[in-house]
Amino acid sequence: MGEVEWLNIAVVIVVAFLGWLGISHFNSVKRVLIGRPMKSEALRSNRTLLLWWIALPILSADLYSSVAYGPEAGMSELVQLGSGAKWLILPLTVATVLLLAILINSYIMGVLAYPNGGGAYAIAKNNFKQPWVAVTASSALLVDYVLTVAVSVSAAMAAIASAYPIVTPYRTTLALVCILVMVIINLRGVAEAANLLAWPTFLFMACMLALIFFGFADEVRHGFVQAATPAFGTVPKDLTTLLILKAFSSTCSALTGIETISNSVPIFREPKQKNAIKTYIALGILEGVTLLGFTYHLYVRGITVNSSNTMLSQLAGLTFGHGWIYQLITWSTFVVLILAANSTFNGFSQLAAIVASDGYLPRKLAQRGDRLSYSNGILMVAALAGLLVALFHSNTNSLIPLYAIGVFVSFTIAQVGLVRRWNRVKGRHWRINRAINGVGSIVTMVVTVIFAVTKFTSGAWLIIVILPLFVSFSLSISRHYQEVARQLRIDLAKDRPTAHKVTSIVLVSGIHRVVDNTLSFAKSLGTNVIAVYVGFDEASIEKIQKRWEEWGSPCELVVLRSQYRSLLAPISSFIHDLEAKKSEGDYIHILMPQFIMRKGWHNLLHNQSALILRAWLFLHKDVVITTVPFHLKK
Amino acid sequence: MGEVEWLNIAVVIVVAFLGWLGISHFNSVKRVLIGRPMKSEALRSNRTLLLWWIALPILSADLYSSVAYGPEAGMSELVQLGSGAKWLILPLTVATVLLLAILINSYIMGVLAYPNGGGAYAIAKNNFKQPWVAVTASSALLVDYVLTVAVSVSAAMAAIASAYPIVTPYRTTLALVCILVMVIINLRGVAEAANLLAWPTFLFMACMLALIFFGFADEVRHGFVQAATPAFGTVPKDLTTLLILKAFSSTCSALTGIETISNSVPIFREPKQKNAIKTYIALGILEGVTLLGFTYHLYVRGITVNSSNTMLSQLAGLTFGHGWIYQLITWSTFVVLILAANSTFNGFSQLAAIVASDGYLPRKLAQRGDRLSYSNGILMVAALAGLLVALFHSNTNSLIPLYAIGVFVSFTIAQVGLVRRWNRVKGRHWRINRAINGVGSIVTMVVTVIFAVTKFTSGAWLIIVILPLFVSFSLSISRHYQEVARQLRIDLAKDRPTAHKVTSIVLVSGIHRVVDNTLSFAKSLGTNVIAVYVGFDEASIEKIQKRWEEWGSPCELVVLRSQYRSLLAPISSFIHDLEAKKSEGDYIHILMPQFIMRKGWHNLLHNQSALILRAWLFLHKDVVITTVPFHLKK
Repeated sequence: MGEVEWLNIAVVIVVAFLGWLGISHFNSVKRVLIGRPMKSEALRSNRTLLLWWIALPILSADLYSSVAYGPEAGMSELVQLGSGAKWLILPLTVATVLLLAILINSYIMGVLAYPNGGGAYAIAKNNFKQPWVAVTASSALLVDYVLTVAVSVSAAMAAIASAYPIVTPYRTTLALVCILVMVIINLRGVAEAANLLAWPTFLFMACMLALIFFGFADEVRHGFVQAATPAFGTVPKDLTTLLILKAFSSTCSALTGIETISNSVPIFREPKQKNAIKTYIALGILEGVTLLGFTYHLYVRGITVNSSNTMLSQLAGLTFGHGWIYQLITWSTFVVLILAANSTFNGFSQLAAIVASDGYLPRKLAQRGDRLSYSNGILMVAALAGLLVALFHSNTNSLIPLYAIGVFVSFTIAQVGLVRRWNRVKGRHWRINRAINGVGSIVTMVVTVIFAVTKFTSGAWLIIVILPLFVSFSLSISRHYQEVARQLRIDLAKDRPTAHKVTSIVLVSGIHRVVDNTLSFAKSLGTNVIAVYVGFDEASIEKIQKRWEEWGSPCELVVLRSQYRSLLAPISSFIHDLEAKKSEGDYIHILMPQFIMRKGWHNLLHNQSALILRAWLFLHKDVVITTVPFHLKK
Repeated sequence: MGEVEWLNIAVVIVVAFLGWLGISHFNSVKRVLIGRPMKSEALRSNRTLLLWWIALPILSADLYSSVAYGPEAGMSELVQLGSGAKWLILPLTVATVLLLAILINSYIMGVLAYPNGGGAYAIAKNNFKQPWVAVTASSALLVDYVLTVAVSVSAAMAAIASAYPIVTPYRTTLALVCILVMVIINLRGVAEAANLLAWPTFLFMACMLALIFFGFADEVRHGFVQAATPAFGTVPKDLTTLLILKAFSSTCSALTGIETISNSVPIFREPKQKNAIKTYIALGILEGVTLLGFTYHLYVRGITVNSSNTMLSQLAGLTFGHGWIYQLITWSTFVVLILAANSTFNGFSQLAAIVASDGYLPRKLAQRGDRLSYSNGILMVAALAGLLVALFHSNTNSLIPLYAIGVFVSFTIAQVGLVRRWNRVKGRHWRINRAINGVGSIVTMVVTVIFAVTKFTSGAWLIIVILPLFVSFSLSISRHYQEVARQLRIDLAKDRPTAHKVTSIVLVSGIHRVVDNTLSFAKSLGTNVIAVYVGFDEASIEKIQKRWEEWGSPCELVVLRSQYRSLLAPISSFIHDLEAKKSEGDYIHILMPQFIMRKGWHNLLHNQSALILRAWLFLHKDVVITTVPFHLKK
């Protein structure tokens, strides 16, 4: 086995050990990692509202960080046709920036319509009667959030591995460790410290802009003619529309995360909507400039795809050499990508909580953990993203085909939802707004179809299969909750607790302290008590009958004979007979003793037949079961 | 990955699938594999008593089959010194046969002393006050029975792989499949068909004798001079006493299984003891002749150790060619070795049952399964032997160093026990008998020490470590059972069930059908009922209080506030307060509702906090817990 496998095995062992530690010392370990539990009130404490230019970096890590992999993903498709096709990245980027402009406009409409934060799920719920539309929007987003974590972490590792090739074989392992660290950070719930997270994104933006600026300075020096520039405008002979569209859809992965601001209008200072719109416009300009400038330099410098050195790292190396500026770019890329993954952790768990509280996902996802974060959602996204990273060996380019379809599905639903809203609510400039969202919905729909078709064979089929399954699963969860609610509903005036007759059955295995204890409890209830003994042979039956009399026959003793050495069958048929005799509403009540051991392994020394019997009775009979504990002293 | 790994993975998948099938359709699958359960009475049905010459093959599969690997194991040690050392196998075999004679004599004494079947455990229990002696004897035997299964199955696979080299890479997998099949056969409990099992052993004995006879015929033809015979009497320069003794201890693995007849005296026809002794003498002669004759031919024909072709297979090929006689020898070797493993399954589970019913092993091992076999013991020996086969890749020669120490430990204990018995009980010829067992005990003790020392570094250390651990574990199990028995003991005249005050607490999560149902049950008991609601926020608390009044306040409602969204802490401190107030003997009784789902996966949609709470309360508080089921209709 290679070194890498051993390292992975070591990580598995460490994780297993931590898991064991976690289970055996659950509370202490949890305290150390996660911190002390927080009171529910802490939630309502005042949250600082943000200036728009502070909100900008905080809410844009997800979108802006994707310039680190979007153009590269597009170029990876093009270079299959040879370097003669490289120039095509320029028109594709222009198209992507155009799409960006349309989306920004559409989302500004969303901010106007839903000032309290309207994700695709909320918009769809508000504007479509059929619940499956909203569930489709949320499912698509949840699936893509998982992919965002996987892609961002993988891209972060690629950034580091480009600067430090020694890391390359351990990328997957390190990516998994990153996810583990993010789980702990998110379970601790440090969302309040979000302001600090603004600076790395600012730094990365500054780095990207500097890279573009110094690139142009270099261009000027060379009189805009560089030896490395591949030919422009040649049409490679194998070029097909499908391939161009596929490259376009890969480039579009640079647009994921655009929805974040529209979900977060409430965290802006007043006037909230205006500030949010200001932020959207600023972010749009920054993203557009960066995409165009960065791609232009990639083309002009003739940079090629290299699986062990990202294009960003190559360009930075060419422009600044491999000194401290290069290191700064590397590390700020890494940090921003990790922040993007981290903010997605939050996005996933919050969306899942909203959907779960509407009953479309297990309710556990809507519960706050000890530190008020939605811990189950955090664990879920981490587990799924970790699985993806492990399966795809932390390779960004093999994850990209799965990516972005979900986001564009939800974009489309949100746009169509907004069109329906303008039709219904009207309001100022509603025709213009409707037109903007109308264009947005058509464009995003077309892009979604392009994604699905062009990436189908390279992995998108998986998403196309999973999404409907996920939606139908969510709907069936909702049906279950509704059915339970229906069955639980009572009429406060009519349905009131009423006493019925109870027949208490004590299962006795002999006459000893535990049976004495259980019978004492049974006799303390005002019910009819019957002791039941299951005998496997005549000798033991005679013995118990004799001893029962010596004991003063504390209650009626029924002996059941079991020829097959099974407890289940005779008890089951005894209960069956009782059921036939009892009136509607009367209870059959079984009392069972349970040994409680001091040492865990002692449980192995005692028959767990009581546990099996209990589980079986619950599943198959309508009986109330009481467990009377007997705490062993040693 | 190689083909073999894939095959192993396939086997794992098949086993996992079968396991899943077994769990989900437990009863049906069990019926198909194991058959219908049998009545306890079937045990007492008359068992046919055996003629001695029918008992001979049935009881000798274990001992006689070991000629298939014993001499080869010895030779494997010798050839490390080159072929000049091969002649040493002859004196070593003579020594082994001498040891055999001593053991047979000693065991005949055992038959005389314990006509109802006296294994080493029974003899030790009867003759030593200290329980650890008997437990050591049984533990040593149990460990060695596991090894017998592993060694026999591995040797059986080696026999087949010698004839069909294509099987070689799949040996481990096939050995595991064999063990699986044996588990099923033994769980079915086909012991009654044992008579049929006599014939393959007869056949194998006939084959071995024929091999030796025709070998001599060939010798006569060659005038007792064969070209292939290695030099006799040369002393290889690297020869050490240690090496000779190590080769001797490997050869002695041919003596394992000698104890079987003495355990089975009751199955013989009258006069039982005489017939058993007759069988012992006949088996001793057969085994001795076979060992000497077989080893002689191995030497004379200059057969060498070859990991892909057993020496038995080589000799059979040389003597009879590779026609049908060779096939007959191969398959009868295979069958006899599997029979030996199979009879050890029985031996293990029966010995474990006897020891368990004395309280030195978990009681489950003493329970008969559906088909009256000791199913837990069978599963245990199969799992352990399977683990050994997998770890040692079904390689007989790497298992041999672990082997036979256990058996000789128990031989020694049995012999010393018999000496003590003759001293105590006396009886006819007791001095002669004592002398025989005295010699036997000294010889077996010396042999045990030789085994431990010579094989120490090649694996015996493992047994030397495991054995005392196993013994001390068994003794602590016994202490636990005794302590429990002490705590459970009551005075029938004094300790009688008496009624006490019960405070019933119903945990309510709201007002709905399930709570209505649980409260109805609580009100049906003649106890003081308190409803407890744990509120996470004031709004929900006000709501429940209002609705409780609307509901006509069926009982007192206590509201507990939980700032940390946990049920455990407030309920725990509430119970603590109740405990402080209650009198000795009074009960705190908690009633919890439990949803019973129609579909298993629906459980995931509901909080299992009730289950966690229940487990926690059981471990930490002295409370009686009643679970009132609510069966969901869909």
